Amino acid sequence: MNSWQEIHDEVLRRIHTRQWKPGDLIPNETDLAQEFGCARATVNRALRTLAETGLLDRRRKAGTRVTLHPVGKAVIEIPLIRRDIEDRGARYGYRLISRQIGPAPASIRAALRIETGTPLVHLLACHLADARPYLLEDRWINPAVVLGAETADFTRISANEWLLTHAPYTHGNLTIAAEPLPPQTAAALQVAAGDAGLVLTRTTWDHASAVTTVRLSHRPGHLLHSTL
Amino acid sequence: MNSWQEIHDEVLRRIHTRQWKPGDLIPNETDLAQEFGCARATVNRALRTLAETGLLDRRRKAGTRVTLHPVGKAVIEIPLIRRDIEDRGARYGYRLISRQIGPAPASIRAALRIETGTPLVHLLACHLADARPYLLEDRWINPAVVLGAETADFTRISANEWLLTHAPYTHGNLTIAAEPLPPQTAAALQVAAGDAGLVLTRTTWDHASAVTTVRLSHRPGHLLHSTL
Repeated sequence: MNSWQEIHDEVLRRIHTRQWKPGDLIPNETDLAQEFGCARATVNRALRTLAETGLLDRRRKAGTRVTLHPVGKAVIEIPLIRRDIEDRGARYGYRLISRQIGPAPASIRAALRIETGTPLVHLLACHLADARPYLLEDRWINPAVVLGAETADFTRISANEWLLTHAPYTHGNLTIAAEPLPPQTAAALQVAAGDAGLVLTRTTWDHASAVTTVRLSHRPGHLLHSTL
Repeated sequence: MNSWQEIHDEVLRRIHTRQWKPGDLIPNETDLAQEFGCARATVNRALRTLAETGLLDRRRKAGTRVTLHPVGKAVIEIPLIRRDIEDRGARYGYRLISRQIGPAPASIRAALRIETGTPLVHLLACHLADARPYLLEDRWINPAVVLGAETADFTRISANEWLLTHAPYTHGNLTIAAEPLPPQTAAALQVAAGDAGLVLTRTTWDHASAVTTVRLSHRPGHLLHSTL
């Protein structure tokens, strides 16, 4: 066997046929490389891929085992909204609805772990696909961390796009929910209040400092695709 | 700098301060290792991590650039339903609602790319958290690929759990949507028809053969968490 894909398939076959059972320690990379007559790096690539899908559990010193309780992993790509819309073959449009600077409500302060009274930039904007509302961006930005957020012209560029080059983040979290859209959001999306909308809430951090938190409310019918 | 984390942070700082701008080619690993006074493998680890978050674009021959249009990536973990419920601190319960073997409707046949008349195993089951419906599993299994699916006792073990050890897959896809729950699904979940439910549709393959397709309809209010 020469390619990592062939080794990947053979290892998968052994797991599948239960030659290697859940919980079993499998041979080390050196032994497998010898058995398959290939480079150790090729075995490594195959095992790494199987570990990423959760079928193998690799530990530096304890070796590699067939996972007892595999956790499947799905990778969701989060492109720029403009790109997402253009990739779906539609013409991109953008409209700023409101822009304010002031204290945030308690729920936002809690999400960003900031103190009462700290002024934040609050933006409400609609992204359009072929002139039809696609999603509503409801965003709070921490201007103490994101320099220029108070003066940037968000009538011309969305915060989604502007932040990309002005405020990289080190980590963050994403929550996905199905929610009945509240009246104001539904109105902006030109649908009926209470319709089921896919809502993505994303908060990002630059080390210990909150950068931004955003709610992206999609028009009903939106599908989020991912590969396993 | 000795650790890959320190190098990661320094590279991030240079991107952040636009010392390295979007689209810029950055120095190669050997030069960076020399500059930082560390092993090339340490630089590699740091750059790999930044490439995974989408901030760097690494090409084997063309070198590493600061990404022009970064695509964020979120990883969603898909545990066994039993584990998901237990991890949320609830007691797991399971109830098979129906089990049939027969031809599938056109939409299912299309998703699985199988021919008319091929009999499939159709299961409808409710997973419970603390005796309350948590999600409805509506699943079709291809028994030509999954040996034993026609005779397995799904009153005692869910297909979600049984398939884990009886039918590994090579790849698959996942779609996430917010949908008004149809009457039958809503009834099984003990909520009102039309309520917004988070619906995950997952189809898996063993090479070119379809293994199974499943719709997991969550009770309204369910949140799917992920890290960035």
